[in-house]
Amino acid sequence: MTHPTPTNDTDLFTCERVEDVEVLTFHKHLLHHLTDLAAKTRILDYLDSVSRDATIRVFLIIAAPQRLDKEEYLTFYRQYLSTATAADQTQLKRLYNGLNQFIIKLYNINPFVVHAGSGNTAFLFMNLSLLCDYRITTKETLFENPALDLGLPPKGGGVFLLSHLLGPAKCAEILYSGRDIGMDEALSLGLVHRIVKQETLRTTALETAHAFAHRSPQALFGTKKLLGYCMKDLEGFLEYENKILEATLRRHQHEEM
Amino acid sequence: MTHPTPTNDTDLFTCERVEDVEVLTFHKHLLHHLTDLAAKTRILDYLDSVSRDATIRVFLIIAAPQRLDKEEYLTFYRQYLSTATAADQTQLKRLYNGLNQFIIKLYNINPFVVHAGSGNTAFLFMNLSLLCDYRITTKETLFENPALDLGLPPKGGGVFLLSHLLGPAKCAEILYSGRDIGMDEALSLGLVHRIVKQETLRTTALETAHAFAHRSPQALFGTKKLLGYCMKDLEGFLEYENKILEATLRRHQHEEM
Amino acid sequence: MTHPTPTNDTDLFTCERVEDVEVLTFHKHLLHHLTDLAAKTRILDYLDSVSRDATIRVFLIIAAPQRLDKEEYLTFYRQYLSTATAADQTQLKRLYNGLNQFIIKLYNINPFVVHAGSGNTAFLFMNLSLLCDYRITTKETLFENPALDLGLPPKGGGVFLLSHLLGPAKCAEILYSGRDIGMDEALSLGLVHRIVKQETLRTTALETAHAFAHRSPQALFGTKKLLGYCMKDLEGFLEYENKILEATLRRHQHEEM
Repeated sequence: MTHPTPTNDTDLFTCERVEDVEVLTFHKHLLHHLTDLAAKTRILDYLDSVSRDATIRVFLIIAAPQRLDKEEYLTFYRQYLSTATAADQTQLKRLYNGLNQFIIKLYNINPFVVHAGSGNTAFLFMNLSLLCDYRITTKETLFENPALDLGLPPKGGGVFLLSHLLGPAKCAEILYSGRDIGMDEALSLGLVHRIVKQETLRTTALETAHAFAHRSPQALFGTKKLLGYCMKDLEGFLEYENKILEATLRRHQHEEM
Repeated sequence: MTHPTPTNDTDLFTCERVEDVEVLTFHKHLLHHLTDLAAKTRILDYLDSVSRDATIRVFLIIAAPQRLDKEEYLTFYRQYLSTATAADQTQLKRLYNGLNQFIIKLYNINPFVVHAGSGNTAFLFMNLSLLCDYRITTKETLFENPALDLGLPPKGGGVFLLSHLLGPAKCAEILYSGRDIGMDEALSLGLVHRIVKQETLRTTALETAHAFAHRSPQALFGTKKLLGYCMKDLEGFLEYENKILEATLRRHQHEEM
Repeated sequence: MTHPTPTNDTDLFTCERVEDVEVLTFHKHLLHHLTDLAAKTRILDYLDSVSRDATIRVFLIIAAPQRLDKEEYLTFYRQYLSTATAADQTQLKRLYNGLNQFIIKLYNINPFVVHAGSGNTAFLFMNLSLLCDYRITTKETLFENPALDLGLPPKGGGVFLLSHLLGPAKCAEILYSGRDIGMDEALSLGLVHRIVKQETLRTTALETAHAFAHRSPQALFGTKKLLGYCMKDLEGFLEYENKILEATLRRHQHEEM
């Protein structure tokens, strides 16, 4: 695979090949970049090239060291909303569509995917990790739920993924309570698979990815595809999610007028 | 919302608005009333008006103090069956269709729904509470399974709801054993969310409903809609359920002839 | 029901009626026989006759005493693969199609099904037992996962069944780890319902089948059908599974060339 030539906007992510493991390292979180057409095209094209490259046995994604936490997420959203009028949700629709495209591509990506991430992070970024097949994190991480403070249902396939992974009863209990998820609970629920120390996160992630690469990536990949069949309606869900979010926003704006 | 004018048959239920919470209190259980066209129209129209009323932030349903327990349910059913002939299941089909209409309307209703109920009750009424989003009950409550004594699979979406909420393995274990479900187990399984004392049931239910109403009912409502997408085939299931029940009844009647 | 007349190939299985319980006893494991057209037709026709026979209240399947364990499964598969060329997967496709036909027929079979089996066995045979409604086994049994050693995702609906029964999170954890499942875990996960001593397996299985037969087989059967509705896409899954397996095999053969 020809890695994309570094350009001005590559500080969003870098990628490298370590033997048969392809490593994607995010330097910033995605959210701002998915409305920038050039950056969006860049990351989506890169994911396509990973899918096409048969020499990649495992794909490792390392999240940005500074992930968007709940407070930043609330600030980001409020800023967004303050610029949008009831009539014009163009910007937000563009963001939602960009997120949907990224999510669907990552969900359908070809090799087995290991995800490593740390730090407090809004549910949206937990969702992105849930699209990956094996998830490593650190003890200090907290998955933070901004939905009730924001007055919006979760964006990013969260209800779909949690409802399928945990069953709708557990999913409802978590989402209706509005509470955060610590790593002990995340581990016991299967939302993360391994918890390591912050300083060994990258090393362990690479070791894990190589272990999978040498352990029959094709059996793992086939199993991943078959699991995907059992959860195949994510795409329809994301479209419905957009509609619900847009309707909720209109209702908020209507109330404020 | 204009509440329905009390008439002779309103002793089935009354409704009132407490701030932004709409409260529906059942005085009798539903079962007898769903074959009475006037009563059925009345309750279904009322649910429609709740769905349309944007000023309702949370809908609270308080079950009848005397819910139909297993023995009464068996008696009710046997009475029903004794009047039906193998050729004529008209009455029972009407009851099943009325139940399906009520279930689908409650399942798709617009605000977030809190349910409060107490006392021993047949699985059918547990099912009705499972259609609601947050469920409060009392320690003395017992969910009773009449299916094996009756020789019929459960009516009212029970297999669908339990299978989705708990997974088919747990659902099969419970239903094939024919056993009842106590509140400790119901709480740990997520079938109920909170257990209170009988004398505080109504007060706690109102407090809970108001707490949800003030905590972002729109985020809760959007989440409820998204969870619904993940379980969207209830309507198809209920039609299939009718067919299976009718076939089972025909087989029973055939054996008895 | 007229039981099939014993012929040369009946040493694969025998069947008998014990009151209202139909008992199928396998003497050898299925795998070799599903590519033999005569044997395949024989077992599939027998399952059809069980489905049609309204006098059967419970169907009891007793697995072969010597089930195919992981090592034998690996040997079987490697032998199979060594005879197939990249261009010609005819033999394997025939085996997969035979398995799919057997699985779909067993999954849709009419009475309530009790399964009894013991001994170490490859996941494929665990899958066959998961198609049955109540599963008895012995403490010494081990469900062995050959997928990662073989480099192929699991055949036989395993991902579908485990993902629906346990949820995709638990299913992924088990399958990606490549580990076996002991009976303590299987019991707590609901993969088996009862563990007995080897010497009482047949007696207990018969007693259990009779207990179900006298406890309202029609309620159980209706419940089974309704549970089936909630997991109704097994057939589509199995076709997709074949495609994934065939693609994985082609990739292996391509790598070896």
